[in-house]
Amino acid sequence: MSLVPLRDDLVPFLKSYLPSNEEQRPGLKPFVTLTYAQSMDSRISKGKGVRTVISHLETKTMTHYLRFHHDGILIGVGTALADDPGLNCKWSPVDKIADMQCSPRPIILDPQCKWRYEGSKLQELAAQNLGKPPVVVVNKLPAWTTKAKAVTYVEAPVGPDGKFDWLPLFLLLKRQFQLNSIMVEGGAVVINELLSRPDIVDSIIVTIGAKYLGIQGVEVSPPAGEIEMDDVAWWKGSKDAVVAARLHRT
Amino acid sequence: MSLVPLRDDLVPFLKSYLPSNEEQRPGLKPFVTLTYAQSMDSRISKGKGVRTVISHLETKTMTHYLRFHHDGILIGVGTALADDPGLNCKWSPVDKIADMQCSPRPIILDPQCKWRYEGSKLQELAAQNLGKPPVVVVNKLPAWTTKAKAVTYVEAPVGPDGKFDWLPLFLLLKRQFQLNSIMVEGGAVVINELLSRPDIVDSIIVTIGAKYLGIQGVEVSPPAGEIEMDDVAWWKGSKDAVVAARLHRT
Ligand SMILES: NC(=O)c1ccc[n+]([C@@H]2O[C@H](COP(=O)([O-])OP(=O)(O)OC[C@H]3O[C@@H](n4cnc5c(N)ncnc54)[C@H](OP(=O)(O)O)[C@@H]3O)[C@@H](O)[C@H]2O)c1
Ligand SMILES: NC(=O)c1ccc[n+]([C@@H]2O[C@H](COP(=O)([O-])OP(=O)(O)OC[C@H]3O[C@@H](n4cnc5c(N)ncnc54)[C@H](OP(=O)(O)O)[C@@H]3O)[C@@H](O)[C@H]2O)c1
Repeated sequence: MSLVPLRDDLVPFLKSYLPSNEEQRPGLKPFVTLTYAQSMDSRISKGKGVRTVISHLETKTMTHYLRFHHDGILIGVGTALADDPGLNCKWSPVDKIADMQCSPRPIILDPQCKWRYEGSKLQELAAQNLGKPPVVVVNKLPAWTTKAKAVTYVEAPVGPDGKFDWLPLFLLLKRQFQLNSIMVEGGAVVINELLSRPDIVDSIIVTIGAKYLGIQGVEVSPPAGEIEMDDVAWWKGSKDAVVAARLHRT
Repeated sequence: MSLVPLRDDLVPFLKSYLPSNEEQRPGLKPFVTLTYAQSMDSRISKGKGVRTVISHLETKTMTHYLRFHHDGILIGVGTALADDPGLNCKWSPVDKIADMQCSPRPIILDPQCKWRYEGSKLQELAAQNLGKPPVVVVNKLPAWTTKAKAVTYVEAPVGPDGKFDWLPLFLLLKRQFQLNSIMVEGGAVVINELLSRPDIVDSIIVTIGAKYLGIQGVEVSPPAGEIEMDDVAWWKGSKDAVVAARLHRT
């Protein structure tokens, strides 16, 4: 499906929240943008694996505009399994059909190797040159890696909680794949953790759809408690709003 | 504490979501506005009884502007006990200190008579002519009612769930106290129930503060599941946004 045009006023609105060229300096972590769409009641889906429309078409176009401006796009394996997302970029400034070059490199955090590239949307898009094949970050390389040549598996150590440490992870992604900017699109586990990491997250861009999804939905709310936002700006769409901000550093 | 001035653009923004004179017709239910302030993660307080700043001073002034436009202001007893709120109106068009006449009639839903007027902020304000004394809706009149003359107790039947039925309740409030418009300010139990009642709620006006309160906070999310909003309008403040809408009728 093609996108509706980008709303003009989104460009100046988003400008100061997008990666610059700063992050190309070696040793620095990549620029990290945390972005997702939520309902009024902070649900990002009706339930795991339940297709949920939250944002208006114009904010959907914004998501592709954001993808255009990032080298990588990161999700947790929960999202990969539940949604089989495309993660490519369909927007480009010259209004041609965007291709692989415009698309960010998908990154899937899959410590336990639950996800398969074969049969996925990512494979389908990469085969058509409409998206890049992904990097899958695992704890231990799985036996089948040789079969799927396009996909790159990377090993990273997990802590006692079974999780990768965020800072080394982002440094590795930059060093090994030249990803100077990474947008994080979800899901709930990833977002809830990164909300407490103002040292990692440079920008946060959240679409709020004017609907409630209800108590059964997949929820964003940081376990760590109160988090302030700085440099807050709001954009009004026809039905959604978007808030862009930085996480407050204490 | 006095209020900061009302932002000019709030007046046209709110206009079509405020009560008109329609509701004065006898037999009709009062105009009901559901209004509250939430964090990004749909929390309305950090925890029960924990004082929580969510909205900016300019949206606080908006709340008083809304109070000015309603005859009654309704809360659940949970809020009365946790916050001891004033519920009066400090805004008036002529920029004088507002008084009792500008303030809506407080209504507390207290089926089990848990709340006491004596020693409350409501009593303090009423004594100074800065607010109206409340109507307390109970299931059975308590023994002590005669002592507190200012407060009016009203009996209403509860269902098997211990709750008043919303429509008869609002009809009673209009009939008995000439309240043609009632704003509902919370808390979570009341909001979560009324979100599923597009037949009762005429307008919904929600302030979203740019912060997260975290998973321990008091949450708004309807148990009934997905709820669409119609006639959605957004207002951008310096730090908050306000969404005004109607609940979708199916
Ligand atoms: N509205 C939106 O913007 C949006 C965007 C994306 C997703 N979603 C929704 O979100 C839901 C899925 O969310 P979710 O919370 O279940 O999944 P998720 O965050 O996508 O994935 C969680 C899993 O990813 C792995 N993971 C996350 N962080 C990790 C870390 N630091 N180190 C190692 N592994 C890590 C873990 O896998 P293991 O369990 O194997 O350890 C974890 O259980 C879906 O319903 C989807 O539709 C919505
Ligand atoms: N941010 C905001 O805009 C805002 C506004 C207001 C309140 N709050 C916060 O909300 C929290 C309190 O919320 P809450 O959910 O605990 O309290 P609540 O909704 O204020 O009160 C719930 C109680 O009110 C009674 N009640 C509610 N609906 C009723 C009905 N239809 N019929 C009969 N009784 C009814 C019940 O009392 P019984 O249990 O006795 O049956 C119920 O348990 C506080 O932390 C407060 O700060 C925030």
